[in-house]
Amino acid sequence: MTKPMIQIALDQTNLTDAIAVASNVHSYVDVIEVGTILAFAEGMNAVSTLRTNHPDHILVCDMKTTDGGAILSRMAFEAGADWITVSAAAHIATIEACKKVADEFNGEIQIEIYGNWTMEDAKAWVSLGISQAIYHRSRDAELAGVGWTDADLNKMRALSDLGLELSITGGIVPEDICLFEGIKAKTFIAGRALAGERGQETAEALKVQIDRYWN
Amino acid sequence: MTKPMIQIALDQTNLTDAIAVASNVHSYVDVIEVGTILAFAEGMNAVSTLRTNHPDHILVCDMKTTDGGAILSRMAFEAGADWITVSAAAHIATIEACKKVADEFNGEIQIEIYGNWTMEDAKAWVSLGISQAIYHRSRDAELAGVGWTDADLNKMRALSDLGLELSITGGIVPEDICLFEGIKAKTFIAGRALAGERGQETAEALKVQIDRYWN
Repeated sequence: MTKPMIQIALDQTNLTDAIAVASNVHSYVDVIEVGTILAFAEGMNAVSTLRTNHPDHILVCDMKTTDGGAILSRMAFEAGADWITVSAAAHIATIEACKKVADEFNGEIQIEIYGNWTMEDAKAWVSLGISQAIYHRSRDAELAGVGWTDADLNKMRALSDLGLELSITGGIVPEDICLFEGIKAKTFIAGRALAGERGQETAEALKVQIDRYWN
Repeated sequence: MTKPMIQIALDQTNLTDAIAVASNVHSYVDVIEVGTILAFAEGMNAVSTLRTNHPDHILVCDMKTTDGGAILSRMAFEAGADWITVSAAAHIATIEACKKVADEFNGEIQIEIYGNWTMEDAKAWVSLGISQAIYHRSRDAELAGVGWTDADLNKMRALSDLGLELSITGGIVPEDICLFEGIKAKTFIAGRALAGERGQETAEALKVQIDRYWN
């Protein structure tokens, strides 16, 4: 697989701010994500505007699609998304409908891992031809000031071994990257860490670590 | 509890069409829902426009909130929603964050029941003070041409007994209403059945059945 990429999550509540952030960071990120907050704030106009502004970036639309998959996925791909997210809680028929639409557009589906998912569920996603999932650090751990737990890392390895490339998120800092060695990591996602004043510095530090552990 | 109400789900992919449908049906529905498709198509402008057009209706914003709950819920309530939906797959901390915001606005949270939820989960929602959930007919059943199953009805009774008032959806027709007698039903939700030519007739037939079984 390719080396893990850097992804910025845009969760501004208005498009003007999101456009500005994307313009500031685009030279040091590979993937631009219309976060769920931005997508609900501004609608598909957020996707199409960012597609126009950044024609060569991978563009993600983070809808966490739970139902109405055929229509939601088509809307996002038509607006210019390359990848869309689908909730792990969606019925398998919904996930399948999204995958069919993705195939029409040469796009990809990423499963947003939330709720009481099982490895049987994960095998079902893989059997549909889905090759990506998004793994969030345990929120309890984050709130308790605990880093990535063994439970997280074991689940991530198991998903990776099934063939899922993971986008990894949850307060990612360069010092964390080594934890994920050996796991198929598609992207590392950050928001404020990349958008702020030290964004470029952070991106470069992430890339140094990525180069160390994936080569 | 009050009698079950009639709710229209607006899942148009553009606001112009949604506005027209809402204007046509508003006299015979109690609740207007900005469906997830419309919310992602047009953003919060859909919520604020329908709030302006229909100041006296209950307005639902169906985001199926999975993460970022504090921000998403605030956005929707500020735009004029009375009720917002939160995914059963969301972390309990997310659900709690949404409930806190709802309380600020005298709004309500409805849990969208998807994925591998358990009765323990349901008890946790109730313990947060959540009193509403949305129950969808089993999709497999619907595709197989099977009506509401005993499995559906038993789960619905169990949720109702915990204290959750259910919004019920999935090809609802007047002939189905009797199946739900004894269950706490907050609303019956329909889309095309209420929006089409025979919408008013359908709404009236639903109300006749509602009056028979809830009084």
